[in-house]
Amino acid sequence: MATLRPPADPESDLRVRAVFADIRATRGTDFVNNFWRYLAADAGLLESVWAEVKAVMATPSLIDPKVKEMIYAAVSIANACDYCTHSHLAAARARGMTAAEQAEFLRIVATAAKTNALVNAVRPPVDRAFLAEE
Amino acid sequence: MATLRPPADPESDLRVRAVFADIRATRGTDFVNNFWRYLAADAGLLESVWAEVKAVMATPSLIDPKVKEMIYAAVSIANACDYCTHSHLAAARARGMTAAEQAEFLRIVATAAKTNALVNAVRPPVDRAFLAEE
Amino acid sequence: MATLRPPADPESDLRVRAVFADIRATRGTDFVNNFWRYLAADAGLLESVWAEVKAVMATPSLIDPKVKEMIYAAVSIANACDYCTHSHLAAARARGMTAAEQAEFLRIVATAAKTNALVNAVRPPVDRAFLAEE
Amino acid sequence: MATLRPPADPESDLRVRAVFADIRATRGTDFVNNFWRYLAADAGLLESVWAEVKAVMATPSLIDPKVKEMIYAAVSIANACDYCTHSHLAAARARGMTAAEQAEFLRIVATAAKTNALVNAVRPPVDRAFLAEE
Amino acid sequence: MATLRPPADPESDLRVRAVFADIRATRGTDFVNNFWRYLAADAGLLESVWAEVKAVMATPSLIDPKVKEMIYAAVSIANACDYCTHSHLAAARARGMTAAEQAEFLRIVATAAKTNALVNAVRPPVDRAFLAEE
Amino acid sequence: MATLRPPADPESDLRVRAVFADIRATRGTDFVNNFWRYLAADAGLLESVWAEVKAVMATPSLIDPKVKEMIYAAVSIANACDYCTHSHLAAARARGMTAAEQAEFLRIVATAAKTNALVNAVRPPVDRAFLAEE
Repeated sequence: MATLRPPADPESDLRVRAVFADIRATRGTDFVNNFWRYLAADAGLLESVWAEVKAVMATPSLIDPKVKEMIYAAVSIANACDYCTHSHLAAARARGMTAAEQAEFLRIVATAAKTNALVNAVRPPVDRAFLAEE
Repeated sequence: MATLRPPADPESDLRVRAVFADIRATRGTDFVNNFWRYLAADAGLLESVWAEVKAVMATPSLIDPKVKEMIYAAVSIANACDYCTHSHLAAARARGMTAAEQAEFLRIVATAAKTNALVNAVRPPVDRAFLAEE
Repeated sequence: MATLRPPADPESDLRVRAVFADIRATRGTDFVNNFWRYLAADAGLLESVWAEVKAVMATPSLIDPKVKEMIYAAVSIANACDYCTHSHLAAARARGMTAAEQAEFLRIVATAAKTNALVNAVRPPVDRAFLAEE
Repeated sequence: MATLRPPADPESDLRVRAVFADIRATRGTDFVNNFWRYLAADAGLLESVWAEVKAVMATPSLIDPKVKEMIYAAVSIANACDYCTHSHLAAARARGMTAAEQAEFLRIVATAAKTNALVNAVRPPVDRAFLAEE
Repeated sequence: MATLRPPADPESDLRVRAVFADIRATRGTDFVNNFWRYLAADAGLLESVWAEVKAVMATPSLIDPKVKEMIYAAVSIANACDYCTHSHLAAARARGMTAAEQAEFLRIVATAAKTNALVNAVRPPVDRAFLAEE
Repeated sequence: MATLRPPADPESDLRVRAVFADIRATRGTDFVNNFWRYLAADAGLLESVWAEVKAVMATPSLIDPKVKEMIYAAVSIANACDYCTHSHLAAARARGMTAAEQAEFLRIVATAAKTNALVNAVRPPVDRAFLAEE
């Protein structure tokens, strides 16, 4: 059901093998999910996307890994990306998001979508107090 | 430039006055931003939307207020809501988001949008391991 | 601030003049709004888009003209189209939408966006009872 | 295939039972669709979302119930929400939308999406005549 | 799983038969894909949508047919339209898009979505140099 | 009107100066547009986004530079990104897109958005013939 055919034996390509090995090492699991298995059809794209996702999501930084995944999932939900929503909510749970936190997260995302629609309907002018430039 | 005319003197309506007073008390500021000033054209809608936003965003809960605003802003950006993006990034800054955290937030939102597009183009099947139901 | 330059004297083109005349006659007003003035840069596109909009929106049919404009505005809001939102809410008001009806319309659009986000986050299976095919 | 596990026996929770009973009474059917069965994982969210949907969609008001569902479906289609599109088109049919009206509805939604794209590409300035504030 | 029931024997309707015959002749294949088979529930809509798609996509013009399908697919991906993404990437491949070109296409679409998100987050002013009107 | 304050003298930062110099050299113009001037608030993000955009858009490859910009603009229009739409249509014109080609481009984007909406409303099953995997 995909728009490209994933390689039958992706790790026969040494560049793919190296990326998959780094995914496994970074995540501490043998599991490599379908997104990477399909991107493996293009080793260069696989390398650059993994390097970006690793740098942004799997490198210690100011924002907590669980929070990063919740932000990522929020974007994915708004973009109606089915796979991404599953993948990043699962990742948030793996990084410690509890059922109660997921329930709160749902409320935030739902209320945001609601007020986004109200604002896009009413079109109030942006308050000067919000502007970072002044 | 809005699609409805905000009341010239919104607080002459007692229900609006009560909501504005609660907004000021909840936020600890005299400032009431345009979203509420325009919704004041419909006191019932103003009341219900403020009650929801207050419950979700301004009531102590499991998720940190700064993180809540970042999730809200992420949805707003994906929904191309100009006013909401300004409003909730300003709110996140008011709740302590530093410039360095905003920079990280931008990277997460950008990478999420990028992989959302890749997934919506490639359409890989959802891994069984992601499913909450099993 | 547009991405194409509208003709300075659009009605010097006879095809544009004919479309503008039909817009005026159909709507019973001399006013031709900017959407058509900019599309006039391409008379063929102007003709085909006007023919479609006239057939769908300005031809008596089963759905009330006011309701048609509300449906059109709902799509425009969800698509974050600023001009379209203004244009079709103004058209709905011109076809009789009262302030009270616009207030109800806002509630529907807001609640729809909210539950769309909840569903796109939770991803429940479609009930068989909804399917038209069975 | 959902991102949360619905309760196996939702009505063993008294708050869920009360909401389901009200859904059945309000709609005059024993059928409770999956959206509510999955939200039942969080009784508080279930209660607040049902209260909102009931107030907006199932309470007699100025806009006809069938028209409300068509507006709701229009938003759902633009937001690419598969479940919501099925659910609210089914609800519109249950409230009397005929096949001929659904065919008209499709034309409106399609033409709206088309002109939204044209406007978002051309970016004409909003006509002053559209503004509610003046 | 559709929201309308396609006719069991669509070509028993002479108008549908004529459109299907034109689809087959225009494309040089007996295959008529599901989009048209479902639209056949409304012969008038089928006729007008096919006429438009044929004029825009299947009539020799300035833009190469393969490029047209890539542009069409880019819009479909951004709109999270599953069927359309499959359909128009398949059409692009049928018009000569190689696997290497599809890989490049994916990079463009992904980078565009990423910078769209950055811009919708940062909200820089449009440079005067971009404006067509000046 | 942005959500971050661009540096007053961006090129006093040596990393920013190097990126701006590369933008100027790559494009053969002294002009550096606002997107980069605002991203300069975060030199690391500026470097990585420019490296990606340069690799994808400004490096000779299989797809023509003008076509790349048209695909980029198509995504930007669908994502309702005002700045991006202006920027990439201007870039397409700078790479040779004529007014007649822009007019064709508009028709493709408009028809794609229309059929995306029809498909997201009707929800026909994906034809097996489209699937790359079989």
